[in-house]
Amino acid sequence: MTGTHSLSALLAPRNVVIVGASERSAWSAGSFSNFARLGFEGQVYLVNRKGGTVHGQPAHRSCAEIGEQVDLALLLVAAEAVPNALRDIAAAGIRFAVVLAAGFDEIGANGRAMQQQITELALELGVTCVGPNCLGFINLVDKVPAWSGRMAELTTGAMAVVSQSGATAHTIAAFAAQQNIGVSHVVSTGNESMVDTTTMATILIEDERVRSVAMFIESIRDARTFRSLARRAAELGKPIVALKIGSSELAAEIAQSHTGALVGDDRLVDAALRQFGVIRVRSLEQLVMTAGLLSRTGPLATGDLGVVSMSGGACDLVADRADASGVRLPILADATRARLAELLPEFCTLRNPLDSTGAASAKPELFRDSIFAIADDPSVAIVAAIHVHPTEERGEAIKARLRIDAPALAGSATPVILLDQTIATIDPGTVRNLEELGIPLAMTGLDHVVEAAGHAIWWSRWLRKDHLPTASAPDLSYLAGAGGVWSEAESLALLVEHGVPVVPYAHVRDEEAAVEAAGRLGSPLVVKLVSPDIVHKSDVGGVLLGVDSPEAVRRAYRQVQAAVLAVPGAQSEGALISSMRSGGVEMIVGVVRDQQWGLTLAVGLGGVLVHVIDDSVLRTLPVSETDVRQMLSELRGKALLDGVRGSKPVDLDALVAAILNVASLAERLGDSLESIEINPFRVEGSTVEALDASIVWAPRGSDEAHP
Amino acid sequence: MTGTHSLSALLAPRNVVIVGASERSAWSAGSFSNFARLGFEGQVYLVNRKGGTVHGQPAHRSCAEIGEQVDLALLLVAAEAVPNALRDIAAAGIRFAVVLAAGFDEIGANGRAMQQQITELALELGVTCVGPNCLGFINLVDKVPAWSGRMAELTTGAMAVVSQSGATAHTIAAFAAQQNIGVSHVVSTGNESMVDTTTMATILIEDERVRSVAMFIESIRDARTFRSLARRAAELGKPIVALKIGSSELAAEIAQSHTGALVGDDRLVDAALRQFGVIRVRSLEQLVMTAGLLSRTGPLATGDLGVVSMSGGACDLVADRADASGVRLPILADATRARLAELLPEFCTLRNPLDSTGAASAKPELFRDSIFAIADDPSVAIVAAIHVHPTEERGEAIKARLRIDAPALAGSATPVILLDQTIATIDPGTVRNLEELGIPLAMTGLDHVVEAAGHAIWWSRWLRKDHLPTASAPDLSYLAGAGGVWSEAESLALLVEHGVPVVPYAHVRDEEAAVEAAGRLGSPLVVKLVSPDIVHKSDVGGVLLGVDSPEAVRRAYRQVQAAVLAVPGAQSEGALISSMRSGGVEMIVGVVRDQQWGLTLAVGLGGVLVHVIDDSVLRTLPVSETDVRQMLSELRGKALLDGVRGSKPVDLDALVAAILNVASLAERLGDSLESIEINPFRVEGSTVEALDASIVWAPRGSDEAHP
Repeated sequence: MTGTHSLSALLAPRNVVIVGASERSAWSAGSFSNFARLGFEGQVYLVNRKGGTVHGQPAHRSCAEIGEQVDLALLLVAAEAVPNALRDIAAAGIRFAVVLAAGFDEIGANGRAMQQQITELALELGVTCVGPNCLGFINLVDKVPAWSGRMAELTTGAMAVVSQSGATAHTIAAFAAQQNIGVSHVVSTGNESMVDTTTMATILIEDERVRSVAMFIESIRDARTFRSLARRAAELGKPIVALKIGSSELAAEIAQSHTGALVGDDRLVDAALRQFGVIRVRSLEQLVMTAGLLSRTGPLATGDLGVVSMSGGACDLVADRADASGVRLPILADATRARLAELLPEFCTLRNPLDSTGAASAKPELFRDSIFAIADDPSVAIVAAIHVHPTEERGEAIKARLRIDAPALAGSATPVILLDQTIATIDPGTVRNLEELGIPLAMTGLDHVVEAAGHAIWWSRWLRKDHLPTASAPDLSYLAGAGGVWSEAESLALLVEHGVPVVPYAHVRDEEAAVEAAGRLGSPLVVKLVSPDIVHKSDVGGVLLGVDSPEAVRRAYRQVQAAVLAVPGAQSEGALISSMRSGGVEMIVGVVRDQQWGLTLAVGLGGVLVHVIDDSVLRTLPVSETDVRQMLSELRGKALLDGVRGSKPVDLDALVAAILNVASLAERLGDSLESIEINPFRVEGSTVEALDASIVWAPRGSDEAHP
Repeated sequence: MTGTHSLSALLAPRNVVIVGASERSAWSAGSFSNFARLGFEGQVYLVNRKGGTVHGQPAHRSCAEIGEQVDLALLLVAAEAVPNALRDIAAAGIRFAVVLAAGFDEIGANGRAMQQQITELALELGVTCVGPNCLGFINLVDKVPAWSGRMAELTTGAMAVVSQSGATAHTIAAFAAQQNIGVSHVVSTGNESMVDTTTMATILIEDERVRSVAMFIESIRDARTFRSLARRAAELGKPIVALKIGSSELAAEIAQSHTGALVGDDRLVDAALRQFGVIRVRSLEQLVMTAGLLSRTGPLATGDLGVVSMSGGACDLVADRADASGVRLPILADATRARLAELLPEFCTLRNPLDSTGAASAKPELFRDSIFAIADDPSVAIVAAIHVHPTEERGEAIKARLRIDAPALAGSATPVILLDQTIATIDPGTVRNLEELGIPLAMTGLDHVVEAAGHAIWWSRWLRKDHLPTASAPDLSYLAGAGGVWSEAESLALLVEHGVPVVPYAHVRDEEAAVEAAGRLGSPLVVKLVSPDIVHKSDVGGVLLGVDSPEAVRRAYRQVQAAVLAVPGAQSEGALISSMRSGGVEMIVGVVRDQQWGLTLAVGLGGVLVHVIDDSVLRTLPVSETDVRQMLSELRGKALLDGVRGSKPVDLDALVAAILNVASLAERLGDSLESIEINPFRVEGSTVEALDASIVWAPRGSDEAHP
């Protein structure tokens, strides 16, 4: 694949050729008309193998015939004609092509073979293709519509749209236009034979005219490049907003069938996106509202959402929606309340959301000054001012009101959204009125905007925080065997060596050593068989509990050694003797390798709760201390850690430190590691102890396969 | 309050007088112009105390001066002029008034006094007032806009809108018009001095032109009448869709401050609405989409949602949203799949949601026939066909496609929604095209429509089920004391008498009886003090566990009797001896009186889970067997009932029967009861036993206060 540097030229060709231009094709007519509609400043050449006049302009018989340097070819030919077209454009020195034709990967084995063939050919010819089976891209900021078929009326702005599906990319951009949200680029990648959505977003994020990226994602093909994209976006202070489908099993199945890519465990996708500072949304509307808002505000300052309305009902709705979406409506500062008290009638309640009541309806100045007061509150980062929009239908009366309110709606350090309560198309007449009134930020739909503001606040906070994981420690991958499973004794030894607290134990090879160790450990004790060949030791009588005298230790040692005989060919490596524990909170801490995301930390509550509620939280490695604290706070049964029924609360610092040590060990083991599982990881007050552990090594040669 | 029968005349006056009509008032001009705009067929009189010409028509100096029988007065006068206006209209024989004036309840104590005064006056004069502080109503089906101020362009149809807040009612109706959803009535009730939203809905539901009611509810003032409304709506097969705010504490607080009514425990509101078959939604958009959809389809037949699309991305989105909203996408029948296999290319996956792919995009007949096939599937009750709408901007090509698809979109026994993927205003041009094409049901916004369809399916299923609670059994309220708390012994005895299973126990008054009972009960035993004066018996040593010999029983009896001395003046009534239990699942079953909803059944998991996750489910009484089964299935820790860690599953039939007996007992105790709490209610296999119980009686004279 070509580097992103040279790819950036792909999206800004100075001239274009439409290959397969034809009077009879609606695709061709639509594509051609887009150039004039968008005001493309370069030359648009047409190629039709019969020549003649097409769309009122002479057509060339081949690209080679043009005789000028052309930057991009829009290939509208059918699948079977693609190879020849590629040869033709390569001969003409054209380096980039957008391939519309369907009939490849998406139709099964035959199509897959054909796609493989054209991809190899393109590589050989030095042509980079977008697609096949894609609609291409529209670069609105440079006025280049390399788009197959007629595009809708779009609005130019700072939000880039990237989607595998061209139809969906177009739907997103068209909806943005209906909401008066400007778009910089609309990019579809289709079957992604050479260029995928992550690559496209990586190009776009570097363009200074792009202030946010809205991605519709069916599958993340390469977690490593996606993570790089997210890291770069964070450096640039630009948000990536992702509608990643596949939260349901059915959607995952559908996506797999039409993209051929693995969708992965959605809980992990969720955790990973959050870790990387990618805003995940659940609908096309949310995608546009959130990326659109941030494309206009940029990162928000410290604080949360302030709301001003003239309707009690709207305030009720805001409060419910904010609560449901986890958006904070901060309590107003005393100074703000004092300022509002001077403005508003005595019967108004001075809270956020602020109901400035019918008083402000009668006197627009009150509404304006209420907005100013809320916007100046130190804990408010963004304001929603609920008021109908100045549509043509609503007439001059509304415009006259808004003319008075406009100075407050123009925003200052704190952005102010003029929010019409229900979602509706913002029509051209309204846009004109808003411009005339000098109101920069007008949105519709209370629910949608509260959620979008919540996303913007979350992301801005994430951006301010130190969210980078701690630096990696030295590589320990030399420890790895050639695959295989380590015994509990080996696993615990490795944990101890790397600072993970483990219950006092001894690995002994004979009765005498067992008695000696027991003397050191005190009683009661647990005696377990050590054998690399037996996984479920308790099933064969290999585990004995409550052993509490030297004689009992000898008996137990002999008994677990006898257990090895139950499994033909199994070898004993002695026994593990450890202090027996009861009480406290049983947790599970593990690191497993995910096919898509690599090493992943899981922290959960163990014991009976595992059976009642699946209570575990995931993060991809590396993790920071903040991440681990956040994980613990997300456990549904976290009350157990605070102490219930008179038990003392868990020492969270000790627990976090222990989990971080597990994570750090796993990270240093790197590609050699398949999984570490510590279960139970017992916590009582400030005692944190691994009671049992197992380590599984990755099979050799898997390093390449995993991201 | 006047009965609903006579009130129905209120909403359909033959002629109207605007009192306080004035050239200088925007309210007056707006109100007056509405009559001509809506095409009101009756006479509109104007009253201005100075007479003269107003709005181009002679004004009367008083209502009495009109000299004709007028049905309704729209009072636009200020608060202080309301009493005289009421006297005038009463003198003219006008029975109904809509009162716009603000400055009453909503502004505090002074306003409350004034409201009280005008309400008493109105009652005395025999005038029924809507409001004060309301915008009135618009009866679109009879063309009567008794509305203060200018109304938006609305669309006439079969959905009635009822809201306390006039602004919100208007916002709802205007949004409906934008979505091409017709409205029959828009009713606001303001401060509800005489007529509240429940009463209005009760009138509207009887109108045969009304097919659904959309209610915006800040507080349910009278649970009893609300329940009657819901019951009547169910009888008529018409849905009530409610946006009831107050799911957050903040919203509850706001609503209380501006309506003065208690909002109540939201979990209980949720449970009660579900029990009554009222569809609860969370946004204005959902309110309109759901009530609008059902106003056009009526109750759906058996089955769930079928989806047809030409976009894989849309199918992904539908699957995720359906999963998140609990909407089933049924698996297609073999016959349906066979039919689709004949239509569609081999590479299409024949599932629901159906992606008929680019093949259908190229050939609209495939899309049409796919819709027919899905609509005919026996498990599909309603179909969403995802396709762009025929807007003017999209031009003739889309219309030509839809002309081919129209026969399938016209629906049959199974309604079919033409669904545009993102939410947008359905403009007049699109409405004309839809009418021309004969497409009756076109909606926008995939998320919103999947949710609305889910609500419609849920409600239709609820309507078909036998959802009426079992008939009430004989009244037991004679049992009630004058308030007070019953001891465990009394409480358990009452439970036993009414068929609630209780652990084997005996209430004994001396040592001999204790020993004798112990012999019968076996060991180990629990011995507890019985005293009406001591609540926390274990705190004073009044509870002894694991008592296991006759001598130990004697000792235990003496010990718990000695414990009574710890509380000065406390009386002993002997001891309770019961079998000691361990293991099994501990539940809590209780009935408590809620201020708003009356007796309410709570079922929860006890033990440590209570501290970890608040796991309880509520229903108002009476409940059916189905309700109780549903309650158990809603417990988050329901896995415990299925048996975990090798314990045997709970006998659900026995548990449900026992809970129903508790509910039935509580219901028969009726107004006398304050609460019954059984904790723990132990369940192990088919053994269900109350281990402890307490009954609290309602204070005398409370019968009136509670619904």
